Amino acid sequence: MAVPDLEFSVTELHAFMISAWPERAGHFEPDRFDVFDPGRCRMRQRVTAGDLRPGGTVSGPTLMQLADSASYALILGHLGDAALAVTTSLSIDFLRRPFGPELVADCELVKLGRSLIVCRVVIASAEEGAAPDPERPEAIANVTYSQSLV
Amino acid sequence: MAVPDLEFSVTELHAFMISAWPERAGHFEPDRFDVFDPGRCRMRQRVTAGDLRPGGTVSGPTLMQLADSASYALILGHLGDAALAVTTSLSIDFLRRPFGPELVADCELVKLGRSLIVCRVVIASAEEGAAPDPERPEAIANVTYSQSLV
Amino acid sequence: MAVPDLEFSVTELHAFMISAWPERAGHFEPDRFDVFDPGRCRMRQRVTAGDLRPGGTVSGPTLMQLADSASYALILGHLGDAALAVTTSLSIDFLRRPFGPELVADCELVKLGRSLIVCRVVIASAEEGAAPDPERPEAIANVTYSQSLV
Amino acid sequence: MAVPDLEFSVTELHAFMISAWPERAGHFEPDRFDVFDPGRCRMRQRVTAGDLRPGGTVSGPTLMQLADSASYALILGHLGDAALAVTTSLSIDFLRRPFGPELVADCELVKLGRSLIVCRVVIASAEEGAAPDPERPEAIANVTYSQSLV
Repeated sequence: MAVPDLEFSVTELHAFMISAWPERAGHFEPDRFDVFDPGRCRMRQRVTAGDLRPGGTVSGPTLMQLADSASYALILGHLGDAALAVTTSLSIDFLRRPFGPELVADCELVKLGRSLIVCRVVIASAEEGAAPDPERPEAIANVTYSQSLV
Repeated sequence: MAVPDLEFSVTELHAFMISAWPERAGHFEPDRFDVFDPGRCRMRQRVTAGDLRPGGTVSGPTLMQLADSASYALILGHLGDAALAVTTSLSIDFLRRPFGPELVADCELVKLGRSLIVCRVVIASAEEGAAPDPERPEAIANVTYSQSLV
Repeated sequence: MAVPDLEFSVTELHAFMISAWPERAGHFEPDRFDVFDPGRCRMRQRVTAGDLRPGGTVSGPTLMQLADSASYALILGHLGDAALAVTTSLSIDFLRRPFGPELVADCELVKLGRSLIVCRVVIASAEEGAAPDPERPEAIANVTYSQSLV
Repeated sequence: MAVPDLEFSVTELHAFMISAWPERAGHFEPDRFDVFDPGRCRMRQRVTAGDLRPGGTVSGPTLMQLADSASYALILGHLGDAALAVTTSLSIDFLRRPFGPELVADCELVKLGRSLIVCRVVIASAEEGAAPDPERPEAIANVTYSQSLV
């Protein structure tokens, strides 16, 4: 996609979240983003005991939330504080059991429209601070948002 | 679907979660289920400040987690402790802004197979302890799980 | 959903399709609809040899097209000729192998908005002209459309 | 993904389809595939009048069928004639109106398991025989299959 510039850096995004959604601002700390570029971001999350289902698998909601958070961050980065974004749909397929210790979400913006914004996300495990193996994705998601003016 | 009997009551499910997934057992307390029958359950959740996105909308992950939790509870109710269930896919469409104060998920089992288990979920807001308006669903989801022996 | 009246009967829908989309009008013949009511329709289709994949299974695209056609017909029934409807997303889960000889799609409108229209569809096999077994759905789909003025 | 070799070339795939599914073998003619490599294929289709909905948009089922056909071809290429593949789910988002005159589907295999096979597909328009603009995808789909022995 021919991608416009970002309105927010990750630091500005975090500052915005602290004022607009203080209960969740911790999800959007700048050091969770390895990449935050126009049209693309990489977000990282440590797996905790609460994320593990019986059997030791990372729970579906943990992965869905990460896919959604990476998309939401990237979309807010593009919209800035001029607009709100609300999720309109999400579909996710779980491919392999994530092994951690970190989950890395690569998010790509494929459509930035007025009534439809769409991101594709690939999630894979990685060692702390390391890049994931691109040949072993653990979940793939398509996330759609729509925007409305404030 | 011709539905087999449940292996777990909601009380047994909660006891199982306390031992198997203590960090999340609070999500599965018996009084959160208005209905827990073969093939069908109704799960209820109070909207909290942390669930609200900027603009006052309940966040997508809150609704996805509720859809997934209702499905997971119903599936564990059918499988008991003889098997594990792992999410294989989830798709959700958000239809209207949930207004709370409670979210009610109606979950129906449509397939209970060895390698594929599928639930349909409808989520709508309701007053505390009340039934939702069936004509104003706020999200609909299809959730698929697969089972593996312990 | 509190559903408005229909703008088109099945006969008017078919007449509209003959003029607007003659190549596919045959898909929308009135006798394919057992039910065509506000908010709800039932559409029927005979399985042909071309629909069968190697192994004798009805192909995915046959079921997707039926889910989409039932949704499109019901949405056009509500919009009449004042607006166009375009598909924005579809998700479908295949639950069991359809055995035919007919496929029956039950379609329910769950949201009729300006920028978002959503239908849920359940597909099951049936004998010729008969009702399907509601306990053995073969596919479930969520279909979303958006409308634009002509 | 670390991808195994193909069992079928496009020519062998077409020969197999002629014997196993003669009614649809025309969909799988070798010259429709610009690329047919391990883990990846590109499939091309000409838009015809019957594919156009009222308003001149390519119909959803046309795009879904192309996403499914590209996935099915690539999966059969990997499985050969030792196994059957059946669709278990498909989710697709439509991003922009396709303008034709050809539709090009880029399909990538992201998981090739015994009970779960997953492809990601991106569809975009192109001039006859030309490559599509990678920055203007018109639809993205996740397609899952499962295999069973013959």
